[in-house]
Amino acid sequence: MKMNMKRGESEGRFSKKKNSDKAPGVKIIPLGGLDQIGMNITAIEYEDTIVVIDCGLAFPEEDMLGIDLVIPDVTYLKDNADKVKGLVVTHGHEDHIGAIPYIEKELNMPIYATKLTIGLIDNKLREHNLLNNVKRKVVSYGQTINLGCFRIEFIRSNHSIADAAGLAIYTPAGILVHTGDFKVDFTPVFGETIDLQRYAELGKKGVLALMADSTNVERPGFTPSEKKVGRTFDILFAEHKSDRLIIATFASNVDRVQQIINSAHKYGRKVVIEGRSMVNVINTASELGFIQIPDNTLVDIEQISNYPGNQIVLITTGSQGENMAALSRIAANIHSRVSIKPGDTVILSSSPIPGNEKAINRVINELEMKGAEVIFQDTHVSGHACQEELKLIYALTKPKYAIPVHGEFRHLKRHAELAREMGVEKDHVVILSNGNVLELSEKSAKVVGNVTSQGILVDGLGVGDVGNIVLRDRQHLSQNGLIIVVVTLEKHSNMLVSGPDIVSRGFVYVRESENLMEECHDVAYDALSGCLDKNITDWGKIKTAIKDDLGEFLWKRTKRNPMILPIITEV
Amino acid sequence: MKMNMKRGESEGRFSKKKNSDKAPGVKIIPLGGLDQIGMNITAIEYEDTIVVIDCGLAFPEEDMLGIDLVIPDVTYLKDNADKVKGLVVTHGHEDHIGAIPYIEKELNMPIYATKLTIGLIDNKLREHNLLNNVKRKVVSYGQTINLGCFRIEFIRSNHSIADAAGLAIYTPAGILVHTGDFKVDFTPVFGETIDLQRYAELGKKGVLALMADSTNVERPGFTPSEKKVGRTFDILFAEHKSDRLIIATFASNVDRVQQIINSAHKYGRKVVIEGRSMVNVINTASELGFIQIPDNTLVDIEQISNYPGNQIVLITTGSQGENMAALSRIAANIHSRVSIKPGDTVILSSSPIPGNEKAINRVINELEMKGAEVIFQDTHVSGHACQEELKLIYALTKPKYAIPVHGEFRHLKRHAELAREMGVEKDHVVILSNGNVLELSEKSAKVVGNVTSQGILVDGLGVGDVGNIVLRDRQHLSQNGLIIVVVTLEKHSNMLVSGPDIVSRGFVYVRESENLMEECHDVAYDALSGCLDKNITDWGKIKTAIKDDLGEFLWKRTKRNPMILPIITEV
Repeated sequence: MKMNMKRGESEGRFSKKKNSDKAPGVKIIPLGGLDQIGMNITAIEYEDTIVVIDCGLAFPEEDMLGIDLVIPDVTYLKDNADKVKGLVVTHGHEDHIGAIPYIEKELNMPIYATKLTIGLIDNKLREHNLLNNVKRKVVSYGQTINLGCFRIEFIRSNHSIADAAGLAIYTPAGILVHTGDFKVDFTPVFGETIDLQRYAELGKKGVLALMADSTNVERPGFTPSEKKVGRTFDILFAEHKSDRLIIATFASNVDRVQQIINSAHKYGRKVVIEGRSMVNVINTASELGFIQIPDNTLVDIEQISNYPGNQIVLITTGSQGENMAALSRIAANIHSRVSIKPGDTVILSSSPIPGNEKAINRVINELEMKGAEVIFQDTHVSGHACQEELKLIYALTKPKYAIPVHGEFRHLKRHAELAREMGVEKDHVVILSNGNVLELSEKSAKVVGNVTSQGILVDGLGVGDVGNIVLRDRQHLSQNGLIIVVVTLEKHSNMLVSGPDIVSRGFVYVRESENLMEECHDVAYDALSGCLDKNITDWGKIKTAIKDDLGEFLWKRTKRNPMILPIITEV
Repeated sequence: MKMNMKRGESEGRFSKKKNSDKAPGVKIIPLGGLDQIGMNITAIEYEDTIVVIDCGLAFPEEDMLGIDLVIPDVTYLKDNADKVKGLVVTHGHEDHIGAIPYIEKELNMPIYATKLTIGLIDNKLREHNLLNNVKRKVVSYGQTINLGCFRIEFIRSNHSIADAAGLAIYTPAGILVHTGDFKVDFTPVFGETIDLQRYAELGKKGVLALMADSTNVERPGFTPSEKKVGRTFDILFAEHKSDRLIIATFASNVDRVQQIINSAHKYGRKVVIEGRSMVNVINTASELGFIQIPDNTLVDIEQISNYPGNQIVLITTGSQGENMAALSRIAANIHSRVSIKPGDTVILSSSPIPGNEKAINRVINELEMKGAEVIFQDTHVSGHACQEELKLIYALTKPKYAIPVHGEFRHLKRHAELAREMGVEKDHVVILSNGNVLELSEKSAKVVGNVTSQGILVDGLGVGDVGNIVLRDRQHLSQNGLIIVVVTLEKHSNMLVSGPDIVSRGFVYVRESENLMEECHDVAYDALSGCLDKNITDWGKIKTAIKDDLGEFLWKRTKRNPMILPIITEV
């Protein structure tokens, strides 16, 4: 084991004996981001160096009842804390930065990212009172940092948030290229086109592996430029000169907000920004110079009623139908400053993230019922590369290996096909699962182990204190409700002193089901008496008898299966 | 009131005084089907005649936890049972026939529909042991039936289920045309193109109002013919000659199944049909002559392992990712006869119904992880009319009034715009809500009242015994779980005999949160002691004190809000 450690092998749980005459490869360990949308985090390891790429959160799946968010399990990094040299972040989206405060509490890593990304990370650290505890360093496009035995270069990129970067990671085993989330925008709103020349240079040098964004790999063609949406806004502003305009989009899409502000300026409207997360992002972007807002353009939401509707555009969060976001509150008529009236035009500048379709539908219906016109077609472009853009990156970098990232399995698989089409050898295309430890060298790519990688559930202030059993109980309670049977027995004699009392919640209207409740009492009483008559004193057995008999009775009577909770007290 | 009744006014709760020198109009009362997808049911009333059109169910919304299905509230029909002459059904989809057994138990109405539709209704009645209690009559296209003061004509139509009909309802106030769910298919798989000539003739006679399908009104152009999917199947069968083929589609899409069988026959494959609802529909369709299955083509699922994969096509339910449907069970590897292996090609011949996207995603990912190729693009056409088809029906029928049906509000609104574009006068386009009573005559269209129309929730065998309070409790339990505080007091003296005992479910891992549970005990004990010290004997007050103090404590400590249930027993 010691020898292994000298050779720079990990001392983690997965270490295996290796053929000692081979040079070690670089290890690529996705701790999240595959199999499930969000929660992007990947460890790159070589000998005594681990560098972490991104540290995002995921939003809960439908069956994670009551869960607020999901963060990665970094047990492997904690077990190897001395090797961890830093966290490198590609861009400022929640699924790439959202878990940082949680993970930094456990694992103090210096953070490296571009200016806007650091600005957004700072906001998060500030909220968690961590700003003074964590080292952050702003890195520019083209700049290279040294972390342990790696050099890492930040490459200019395009995405639906400004200041996004791709990464070239120079390792002793070869150059890894990580695109981050990207698209190719030849006419970006802010900054320049993704640095295709640099990707080409890297390709000339020789790229060991390309880890590229799989999100849109099912879509043929090229993603249109962000500027396209700006032209649509101009048209919509021209067509709706007499209406109040409300535009909902993603809080972090600074360029989108810039374009709305541009149209507003052109058409003489003031701009109100509403929704906490959007206000935060735009403030940060504005302070750091990523958005230009003409003087006297912004108006506080408090002042909105001082302006006629046709001189205002309200930019807001809630384009995904999120329950508590500003647009949903406006649609439900529970927003304190804005209520919808005929003559309002609402533009959804977004496309539904899978799973949000029904919530968005509801918001659209509510808005239209109150008289608004809702526009949602051709008002959005994606921030992710489609097939031809991905092919372009493959053509430029000509990687030896392809490791699709950022997508569900179906996307990774399509991406693997695309990589093969682009000339990557069949067995040089590697689809990983979260937790896989891939060892990669010029000679081979092999999954040599697995580390813990299940997401950790965050519920309120609790991190990891809700797991499968708790979720199963919540699921059970949510579907069928609960029946409590309270019984009081006399100590020693085990005689029935009081009860069984039946209490139910979430099962049926008790007032309209009095008979049923009485029958439940009788069934529980019989089960209990049966036990006591037989001198059964084990509370576990008594509870099981009540549960079984009552469960069977209720299934027969109602075809339902409430949670049955017998509680015995003794006096 | 009596005079009103003589004039044929409803004695229902909504009746209002009317101007007696006007001829009464015909009343159109949607009891469901608007505001929410599914649960289509509309009452048409004139003097002593009520005819009901369709009687569908809805599937529960996301917040209707544990609910199996939703059926219409027919209180208004029961209050006017003597007037109800019959139920006329346009086609055999669940959202048009699914509530029939439930409603027929309360309101025995004779049912009129085309042959396949009656066949499918019979299946439902049989399941509920109602086949001998309900009169059914098969009506052919072009045939007219007399129900009270109405004549009702069935018009040949096209839809994603065979034998669909539109209706012409001849009322003393004028002719109503109801399209049912429809598309215009010039090359249908079974039968003929929708009877456009008859719609034209009706237009020539003069149509008082058109009630047309709004589902696809947001889509420009024409919905392609069902035959298009058949050509795709031929191509896919040719391209995947060596693979086992599994095709998932809607259980009721008989023509789709016919086309798969045609391709199978052409390419020498046997056909296995799997999924209870599909087996039922195809059996009925086959018995009634709506599907032609060549001899020796069908193979029982039990026999599937006797054939090599490339000689089999499995047609199955589950294209919407439904949990218990065959495809989901196959994907999750819990199907007893079929397990996925490399070389399987799965075709989803469907498009996602909003809300099902994530479930479908999961199924696709699971199938691909097991090595299947999944094909889901260009393998489906809709059964509903797009904008140009709707315009065609307006051009043929030239209705005086337009009453958009079958859609959410956003669809009804777009449909209203389309109707105006097609020349219907602005205030002759009426968007109704469920429960509205529209009185319609040549002279005017006016909502004259409202009747009960909220859906009734069905949970297991319970119909209507789960309502908002129960659902709110389920919601609360699902998000935060439950803490029970059990206290035993001595009768009269009110002294604490036992407890407080703390029991929790769905809140936190109790084993890892022992301290928290102890603190809960202490908080509850203090709250209780405080009451007893002050000689508070009112159990309600004691419970409130425990709830409030424990709730506040837990919110501060965990930022969670479990249901707190104090239970007091006395001995």
